Amino acid sequence: MDLGESRCSIARALSVVGDRWTLLLLREAFLGARRFEDFHRNTGAARHIVAERLQHLVAHGVLERRRYQTRPERHEYVLTAKGRALYPVMLSLLTWGDDWMLDQEEAPSLTVVHESCGATGTPELRCSACGEPVAAGDTHHVITT
Amino acid sequence: MDLGESRCSIARALSVVGDRWTLLLLREAFLGARRFEDFHRNTGAARHIVAERLQHLVAHGVLERRRYQTRPERHEYVLTAKGRALYPVMLSLLTWGDDWMLDQEEAPSLTVVHESCGATGTPELRCSACGEPVAAGDTHHVITT
Repeated sequence: MDLGESRCSIARALSVVGDRWTLLLLREAFLGARRFEDFHRNTGAARHIVAERLQHLVAHGVLERRRYQTRPERHEYVLTAKGRALYPVMLSLLTWGDDWMLDQEEAPSLTVVHESCGATGTPELRCSACGEPVAAGDTHHVITT
Repeated sequence: MDLGESRCSIARALSVVGDRWTLLLLREAFLGARRFEDFHRNTGAARHIVAERLQHLVAHGVLERRRYQTRPERHEYVLTAKGRALYPVMLSLLTWGDDWMLDQEEAPSLTVVHESCGATGTPELRCSACGEPVAAGDTHHVITT
């Protein structure tokens, strides 16, 4: 099926976040990183890659660059509303990694706790109408182009 | 926070699917593509990129390569259980693209219909315990390393 790249929302999303380093930087942002050195240290990405990807995320409105010190001038990178809306993408990757990419004896390295109910465990995809869990094969797709 | 790349499930997931072309090929697989020519045509990726990425997904058990014709020999690529488990990643990207990457006058190019209840609309991330929608800021993360 040809969705027309220009109109496909997945293709457009991937033009911003369809890159391993970008998604690792976003992981760090969701875990609280704000400063260049933290992004650099925690992802292991080369400095020029960190700089280029952060700039890309700022240009697309996913991160906001804020000055937090003047002498010398220093900036930090903070998730915008558009950036925070990527949380389901990160959690979906986490869940899949936990389910399919760990060896049997390995425990997940990160636990997600839902503040309001206190439950531990990764959120799951559910139908926004009936609330039932949704997996591949439970849906069909209508292309409206 | 240093999760240790080798143990982080997100990093491991991204070692398989942290690439724009790979995710576009997976989009096509979820929309029903099975044959090389369909993947090639619908993503617009160069043939050597399609070949390399399909091989990568087969090597990681996300797609299964099946012979469907013998003279000449032809293969198709089918999502495995591990591949179908990436559906939440795709839907999360779709939702984010719909919400943040379309111009005001544009309608989403794809509608998701939940078979069992008939509702239209993209599934959302909910707490698997209490069933409430979960967004960034509704959770905290415990690193167990």
